[in-house]
Amino acid sequence: MRKKVIVIGATGTIGQAIVAELESDCDVIKVGGSSGDHTVDIASSESIAELYRQFSNAKAVVCAAARGVVFAPLADMTKDTYLQSLQSKQLGQIDLVTQGLKLLGNDVSYTLTTGLLNCDPIAAGSAAGMVNGAVEGFARAAAIDVPAKQRINVVSPALLLESVEKYKDYFPGFLPVPAKTVALAYRKSIMGKQTGQIMQVGWS
Amino acid sequence: MRKKVIVIGATGTIGQAIVAELESDCDVIKVGGSSGDHTVDIASSESIAELYRQFSNAKAVVCAAARGVVFAPLADMTKDTYLQSLQSKQLGQIDLVTQGLKLLGNDVSYTLTTGLLNCDPIAAGSAAGMVNGAVEGFARAAAIDVPAKQRINVVSPALLLESVEKYKDYFPGFLPVPAKTVALAYRKSIMGKQTGQIMQVGWS
Repeated sequence: MRKKVIVIGATGTIGQAIVAELESDCDVIKVGGSSGDHTVDIASSESIAELYRQFSNAKAVVCAAARGVVFAPLADMTKDTYLQSLQSKQLGQIDLVTQGLKLLGNDVSYTLTTGLLNCDPIAAGSAAGMVNGAVEGFARAAAIDVPAKQRINVVSPALLLESVEKYKDYFPGFLPVPAKTVALAYRKSIMGKQTGQIMQVGWS
Repeated sequence: MRKKVIVIGATGTIGQAIVAELESDCDVIKVGGSSGDHTVDIASSESIAELYRQFSNAKAVVCAAARGVVFAPLADMTKDTYLQSLQSKQLGQIDLVTQGLKLLGNDVSYTLTTGLLNCDPIAAGSAAGMVNGAVEGFARAAAIDVPAKQRINVVSPALLLESVEKYKDYFPGFLPVPAKTVALAYRKSIMGKQTGQIMQVGWS
């Protein structure tokens, strides 16, 4: 039976690769931030609830949407810029899980997205370090605390090959990884039995 | 010359051990959450600024205060309980660093505190996992992004021997570590040259 998978951030670079990876054997519900057939703002609990009520028979939720993380030198950061940075990628991704426990089935997998900056930092990346670390710490702890057979994993991609031109000055010496390779990790999380795993893709 | 060290959370189990470890060769400013000669609420930016203005010649800031992290089963957690959990231990500890860059000297060390629950989770500990991961990700990234010679480290203690009676049912099979042993790691962070390190004490 084809698995119904909600892909949030489906129009982004990773999201498109996830859709391409999955659509041969899954029913993929493509969800964008502002464009596409379906949209969600993961920083809004009501927006998440609305999406889940519409697709309550989904068997997997993938989030590859990441907005609002501030990149700025540490000396320019304030409590407000950290608070702003955590709304979507940290609290929003966590909210996808906790609301899913209430509104979706007992055997759903959740695959969240971070990135290597909490372990392999760059200049101006302290908020990204915070947010990625938070999501990974949450996922390891939440995975052992689910009420039924839900699973929670995180994909942590390195610098995307598709983003090298745009971001290479910020990531000196980072090995690029194609989005297609990153997409495999989402398949592993959705189709495998793993839980509480941080799947690092393309780190070097 | 004796180093001036601000110890926040000085009346707690770890805080008392840190004070005992340091007071022979440091000028220790003991700061409590609600009692003692000096108090600070690290969830309040104004409270932190007031403390720093009073002791702007301090050469080290240690935070062993951790309040407000919610311990509850994942199924009972909501966005609000995560938001509540991160105010002090995550954003408050980060605020100690970013405000310190503005109000303290160029060669101050910051030593924050987490705990092993983002890597070695327990039931009902998903908010602790989030918060600890956030602080560690922040510290690794912020340490390479400081404007001058500031240093940032994290001490991540295991279950304290002094807390075993109270918490043993929540930490089955965890090896206890005496607070005195944990306190050594704070000395290492303050007196050494390390930065961006997560000092795991008593993990097994």
